[in-house]
Amino acid sequence: MSATKITAPEGQPFVDIEREFDAPRELVLRAYREPELIKQWLGPRQYEMRIDRWDARDGGEYRYVHTDGTNEYAFHGVFHSFDMDSMVQTFEFEGAPGHVSLDTQVLEDLGNGRTRVKGHSVFMSVADRDAMVEAGMKVGVEDGFNRLDELLPTLRTPVGAAS
Amino acid sequence: MSATKITAPEGQPFVDIEREFDAPRELVLRAYREPELIKQWLGPRQYEMRIDRWDARDGGEYRYVHTDGTNEYAFHGVFHSFDMDSMVQTFEFEGAPGHVSLDTQVLEDLGNGRTRVKGHSVFMSVADRDAMVEAGMKVGVEDGFNRLDELLPTLRTPVGAAS
Repeated sequence: MSATKITAPEGQPFVDIEREFDAPRELVLRAYREPELIKQWLGPRQYEMRIDRWDARDGGEYRYVHTDGTNEYAFHGVFHSFDMDSMVQTFEFEGAPGHVSLDTQVLEDLGNGRTRVKGHSVFMSVADRDAMVEAGMKVGVEDGFNRLDELLPTLRTPVGAAS
Repeated sequence: MSATKITAPEGQPFVDIEREFDAPRELVLRAYREPELIKQWLGPRQYEMRIDRWDARDGGEYRYVHTDGTNEYAFHGVFHSFDMDSMVQTFEFEGAPGHVSLDTQVLEDLGNGRTRVKGHSVFMSVADRDAMVEAGMKVGVEDGFNRLDELLPTLRTPVGAAS
């Protein structure tokens, strides 16, 4: 399992996140784009994720809810652009309406079946960025990536499966 | 006519824009939200503006084209949140796909029928911000605001018009 690198430079309204996965880029892409897969890894381990909307196209909307059975935390945004190896989307926690970030994910093919995910999120202000970091972003991101690490091997087509 | 204040601090991925208008906030809001009005002021004076999509709601898409008869410059994005006095939207010039900014407009009621517009745009990188500033953003913004200054008085209901 790789380490997650989170960088939040003082006085700048952004966060950078990097993590490597021992899986080819096609699989990591699928895990980021297919709602049935994303439900299985995005966010802290103790929450169930329910997806209300997931229109994965340039201009499409999404909304999802994390719940521990008692509390619900809802998030929504729009996908802005999709590429073979990157995506851009907005992100808003409905508990803090009007505070939006713009998130870019780039998936780098490292060869040898490995992939690096580079996330860059810009916020409306340094205060918004700091609030997100202090709200426990690190734990959520780390938990999610660890779950993704567990999910990815299960997506491989077993050798000889079609025979 | 008021001066436009544009601030692009060195090494930071954002631009701030401020301008005051001699019109009440309701009128300025209409000029920002109604496509038939926005066509009349947004962007440089020498271009016609054609609006292909304008779905003014949280999660709605927009697309418009500036043309001088020969060249066409297309832009698209999504509206993210609307409030009585603010809006958040993404913005992408189709000539530079994948380079998106997140723009916030806040309309402040200054009393005495005057309104201050405060725009804050964050970019994916300082390089993206610099490219936008160097692409002549200042001229486009200034031209647009001057046209808005001319448009706003024509939106007032003349005293006694209904009698």
